[in-house]
Amino acid sequence: MDHQAEFEFHEFNVGKGKHDPSSTRIELMAQSREQLDTLIREVLRLGATLPETPEVRYETVEGDMMLPDDFYCTTNHETAVYMNDTWVTVENQMMDKHIILEPENMRAYCKPIAAVKKGDKVVVGQRGVKIKHPERPREGVGVFEFMNSDVSPEKPVTSIIKEIASSLKDRAGNGGKIVVVAGPAVIHTGGAPYLAEMIELGYVDALLSGNALAVHDIELALFGTSLGVNLERIKIQNPRNHIAAINQVLKAGSIKSLVDNGKLKKGIFYQLIKNNVPFVLAGSIRDDGPIPEVIKCSNEAQRLYREQVKDADYVIMLASTLHSIAVGNMLPSRVKTICVDINPAVVTKLSDRGTSQAVGIVTDVGTFLPLLVSELRG
Amino acid sequence: MDHQAEFEFHEFNVGKGKHDPSSTRIELMAQSREQLDTLIREVLRLGATLPETPEVRYETVEGDMMLPDDFYCTTNHETAVYMNDTWVTVENQMMDKHIILEPENMRAYCKPIAAVKKGDKVVVGQRGVKIKHPERPREGVGVFEFMNSDVSPEKPVTSIIKEIASSLKDRAGNGGKIVVVAGPAVIHTGGAPYLAEMIELGYVDALLSGNALAVHDIELALFGTSLGVNLERIKIQNPRNHIAAINQVLKAGSIKSLVDNGKLKKGIFYQLIKNNVPFVLAGSIRDDGPIPEVIKCSNEAQRLYREQVKDADYVIMLASTLHSIAVGNMLPSRVKTICVDINPAVVTKLSDRGTSQAVGIVTDVGTFLPLLVSELRG
Amino acid sequence: MDHQAEFEFHEFNVGKGKHDPSSTRIELMAQSREQLDTLIREVLRLGATLPETPEVRYETVEGDMMLPDDFYCTTNHETAVYMNDTWVTVENQMMDKHIILEPENMRAYCKPIAAVKKGDKVVVGQRGVKIKHPERPREGVGVFEFMNSDVSPEKPVTSIIKEIASSLKDRAGNGGKIVVVAGPAVIHTGGAPYLAEMIELGYVDALLSGNALAVHDIELALFGTSLGVNLERIKIQNPRNHIAAINQVLKAGSIKSLVDNGKLKKGIFYQLIKNNVPFVLAGSIRDDGPIPEVIKCSNEAQRLYREQVKDADYVIMLASTLHSIAVGNMLPSRVKTICVDINPAVVTKLSDRGTSQAVGIVTDVGTFLPLLVSELRG
Amino acid sequence: MDHQAEFEFHEFNVGKGKHDPSSTRIELMAQSREQLDTLIREVLRLGATLPETPEVRYETVEGDMMLPDDFYCTTNHETAVYMNDTWVTVENQMMDKHIILEPENMRAYCKPIAAVKKGDKVVVGQRGVKIKHPERPREGVGVFEFMNSDVSPEKPVTSIIKEIASSLKDRAGNGGKIVVVAGPAVIHTGGAPYLAEMIELGYVDALLSGNALAVHDIELALFGTSLGVNLERIKIQNPRNHIAAINQVLKAGSIKSLVDNGKLKKGIFYQLIKNNVPFVLAGSIRDDGPIPEVIKCSNEAQRLYREQVKDADYVIMLASTLHSIAVGNMLPSRVKTICVDINPAVVTKLSDRGTSQAVGIVTDVGTFLPLLVSELRG
Repeated sequence: MDHQAEFEFHEFNVGKGKHDPSSTRIELMAQSREQLDTLIREVLRLGATLPETPEVRYETVEGDMMLPDDFYCTTNHETAVYMNDTWVTVENQMMDKHIILEPENMRAYCKPIAAVKKGDKVVVGQRGVKIKHPERPREGVGVFEFMNSDVSPEKPVTSIIKEIASSLKDRAGNGGKIVVVAGPAVIHTGGAPYLAEMIELGYVDALLSGNALAVHDIELALFGTSLGVNLERIKIQNPRNHIAAINQVLKAGSIKSLVDNGKLKKGIFYQLIKNNVPFVLAGSIRDDGPIPEVIKCSNEAQRLYREQVKDADYVIMLASTLHSIAVGNMLPSRVKTICVDINPAVVTKLSDRGTSQAVGIVTDVGTFLPLLVSELRG
Repeated sequence: MDHQAEFEFHEFNVGKGKHDPSSTRIELMAQSREQLDTLIREVLRLGATLPETPEVRYETVEGDMMLPDDFYCTTNHETAVYMNDTWVTVENQMMDKHIILEPENMRAYCKPIAAVKKGDKVVVGQRGVKIKHPERPREGVGVFEFMNSDVSPEKPVTSIIKEIASSLKDRAGNGGKIVVVAGPAVIHTGGAPYLAEMIELGYVDALLSGNALAVHDIELALFGTSLGVNLERIKIQNPRNHIAAINQVLKAGSIKSLVDNGKLKKGIFYQLIKNNVPFVLAGSIRDDGPIPEVIKCSNEAQRLYREQVKDADYVIMLASTLHSIAVGNMLPSRVKTICVDINPAVVTKLSDRGTSQAVGIVTDVGTFLPLLVSELRG
Repeated sequence: MDHQAEFEFHEFNVGKGKHDPSSTRIELMAQSREQLDTLIREVLRLGATLPETPEVRYETVEGDMMLPDDFYCTTNHETAVYMNDTWVTVENQMMDKHIILEPENMRAYCKPIAAVKKGDKVVVGQRGVKIKHPERPREGVGVFEFMNSDVSPEKPVTSIIKEIASSLKDRAGNGGKIVVVAGPAVIHTGGAPYLAEMIELGYVDALLSGNALAVHDIELALFGTSLGVNLERIKIQNPRNHIAAINQVLKAGSIKSLVDNGKLKKGIFYQLIKNNVPFVLAGSIRDDGPIPEVIKCSNEAQRLYREQVKDADYVIMLASTLHSIAVGNMLPSRVKTICVDINPAVVTKLSDRGTSQAVGIVTDVGTFLPLLVSELRG
Repeated sequence: MDHQAEFEFHEFNVGKGKHDPSSTRIELMAQSREQLDTLIREVLRLGATLPETPEVRYETVEGDMMLPDDFYCTTNHETAVYMNDTWVTVENQMMDKHIILEPENMRAYCKPIAAVKKGDKVVVGQRGVKIKHPERPREGVGVFEFMNSDVSPEKPVTSIIKEIASSLKDRAGNGGKIVVVAGPAVIHTGGAPYLAEMIELGYVDALLSGNALAVHDIELALFGTSLGVNLERIKIQNPRNHIAAINQVLKAGSIKSLVDNGKLKKGIFYQLIKNNVPFVLAGSIRDDGPIPEVIKCSNEAQRLYREQVKDADYVIMLASTLHSIAVGNMLPSRVKTICVDINPAVVTKLSDRGTSQAVGIVTDVGTFLPLLVSELRG
């Protein structure tokens, strides 16, 4: 299905009991020779065999370390080749290597490209090669089955950002609700103007966060610093500024009043208020202040969060462990969920706690946001 | 199979084409009522339904925030309950919540425990509840399917260590070959005496590493420091000691000569030489020295590594990204492979590069080794 | 000096022995009242006192949770206030709090803003406040002094990128040599076209790396994938492509021949060869292939690396632990060194091994490069 | 002072203004020749010179790659040697290398050990060598000064654990108050029985945490699982167990009642209640339940936390970002603070937010606790 091919099951025999063999026979239909070759390669790598097993094909190597273009590239699973009407197990199995045949001795073995010599008979194409995947254990699950892996920072982020931007554009156009969950690292890493712009562009239908995001956003708007660090000139300016920001809000009575009286003129919360986008700030044990909008009772904060996410279609989590996991617990699995964090552990934690639909993007929110917004603007 | 139950497939109909429905009918057989209940709970959570759908059962809550013991606990997938012979979709679906019924209105919805009130009709047991898992996309794979997650540091390490120790004991007793791959963090974190003891106890059949492991092991044995840090008194002592260690080996001619002339009396390499355990040290661009045993040509080092791992049964990778990934590439998937690293990224990288059989243990090698050795001693 | 103020030492008495007190008297000169206030605030926070100690000043709070604008904000160090000609120690010391005075009881204590009440006498300004920093231990260094911290992902990356771009422009204009060290994650994260553009723009005078960077760059140029992953459509396409790329280079004889025969038309190595920028590829135990340009002997690779860095003025390390640490060992401390990695551990490791001049930027190389190149273009 | 030596300042001239030179003359007194040599080596590495500069000394190398035992080992800072009454700058400066002299040409340069040849004149001892550290910038602070690094996982953890155990023993014996801050990873990683034992042994005077620690501790005591994972048999058992644990507490009315009615018989909270150790559980937006002891109002939770830490002498933070940073904000800098986390980012964050006295131990809490408790028992 990933390859947009058609298929038909001709047989599907599942062994009745635990030790009975299973088998299937599938017809694959492609729209081009090339697509068919791709399909065949993939199913053979999964362990399939073709209806009539053809002899494995080889070419003779023309020079040391030079493979024919159609060389076969191994997996790390047990492999056999069909040679002189017999399945011969490949010796010395390793991944990303090549199979050398000695038909006269009925032997086949792996070699790395560096060891391939002129005259070697090297397997080409996919046919006549059978892969045996490790069997699932029949009894119990040990440490080897309990754990495995996959949050990777090594992904093509700019392409991923393009795809996200395009799905956000679709959704925003169609009345889909986009909820953003954000932590204060958005401000510290210089992301505030970009998230503010996303709000202005209409890509945020609700914002869920805590005290610190608001405090540092307002600190930045009023004093040009975040936790006292001047974000443009990159130096520590005044560590008391975040308390001064809190004091300004407390004196005005609310963030909204600070906007209304003309003191708060830019930033995330300015845009939220100007565009009537609802937000919920949940209190936590580590808050300074907090500012009046913060919901200090955790049960009440949960209730208000739930109200915002219950009809969400898209949730974007930006650099916030606490609020992301809280929101993850409230989401049905149908909601598209993206979690952007420089720390792979946050994504792992989300998934450990059951929000398995979350797509983790291990990147820097401070560089992610400008690139995303630049796509959204276009 | 994980539950060691028996089963029999009575039917298994796979839809012929891409849009045809599939279905199966399975008989489950357990050895106790309790085991059967567990099986039923699990298959229902996977989306199964029972042969005759029973009405969903509920109990009336006796006090605010008090659930009956047999409460049903939700997933985050779309769910329906069978009420008055009809499937009713549960509203406001979230995970780890509870389903409240209003049979008179034919409604069902989720509530968190904190919102459960005296008099609420809360679903109990597993029956009459149907879960609908998200469908796999029929066409193409987007960013949401390309990525997902699971290397977690939040695992019960001491139990895992016990299981590893027990499988090492089995293997060591039966002629299975254990290969250890190790990086210099083993020394810096204080693990040297423990790895040395593992060798002495017979749990290491070959060691694969690079220059730094040997240099710092010998530095520790000769001068009591690792990269100049005194490991017992935890202070920087003399940053030139690792070069002095290299100098001693160069003067003696080899590590073996340093053991033979009585200067090297303890540590990992002392034990390797004393117990005739083969080792291969691969050269790298960041080596100081290197000492004579280091294989400076990368092709030759690969060849020697491959010779050691080709008949390995068990590979333990300790805090070494470079050598672990190199060895991962050489291993058939049948080899039990354990990768211990404090950095989840190393395990992710192994898996990204195809060594998917590797079990990643995200823990500190400096605390892992003493706990493992204490199990092996027993 | 950070504040660009002038100063003059009038006295500087260092206690002769270990237990004798030291003192200094410094005159600070500023160009504005505001600058002077900043200077005074900073030196008072460091523990200085003013020549004549003024009484601490306070204002009476006008409403609950409302501070006067000039409120004093505490540190977590022991603090005293000068009240009625006496130094009074502040009780209940905590950071980011406020000092409430009870002159009638000669008491002073900390309160968080949330606990500040109408009528409280809260300290304002910096004068009359004395901070006592913890003393350095007189004997020995325990675990508490051996370790401390500071690689942070929470920095304003876009501003940092601007400053780097501007210093690169200065340097490139003035004949300064810029050496780039890069790992294959540059390719996997989609950074290849941007690093290629940096080379084209003249910002790279030498490139140091290993086999994998070249292999995946060429794989991307020839087949549109990196380790088999299509970077634009973000899907796994063909895991054998990197071996096919190696095979193409081996057949052509070298990367240069592949450019000369018109097959390699874009990417990092195409630009290096087109612009005659030297590069060194060091072999390693985990190489597939390797391609002919790779220096397989680690000693020889070190020698060639050293030749490139010996007159470097600027080194940029991109997502490569192995090569970055190797290069770090070769650099005099005067060379500006930037290490970009999503993993803070890499920067820590560089510093642990003595390259303390390295500036670590904990961000995603795949988003860092497009943003940097966009600044360099301008 | 670190070396427990005596010293006397004979002169200490600080340049009056920004561009004036400063100098000092210090007499060092040691109790042994060896101690004196160590002191001299260290101060020379810091840039000191001896009263009468002696000629640099060298020895002629006896064989390729063989250094004299007393070889000088370089730093990466600009270095000069005193040769024929002249200071000669060392060429090609790199760290951990050796200085070769050519007195006839008045040249000196660095070589790695691998390049040292028979007949080379290599510097020995520390005398006649002068190191010039980079100067602090006179104006402003750029990106290169704003950031630097040092949280390392590569530390000798078992020795650190011994030192912590010994300081805890001292403190516990002398009425010092020990406060533990803990996150639920303590339970998931198998640490619960060890923390419970620490309480029983009298090493915990107060515990600060949130809902999850209590829920999973009680889940483990009642059902043998943590978040549904059986910690001994390492398999997923029942994901609803943590809700069942909450339900048991809600039905009993409090954790204390669950202990009193004999249902809760082991674990951390059992020991806290049995030993009358106070605890505060702060509510958060991500709580399931919560159980009755949880303080749902964040302001009130802060107040109760502050009450516990205000007279603390020692704070141990175990795997909890949220609560650790909250507590860090409440601590005066004199309080010994240890933060144990597998994620270096947590320690960095603590320090970024001003708790600079915190000692970060980057290790696995699940292996740290058994090793610590085994030391405390003895």
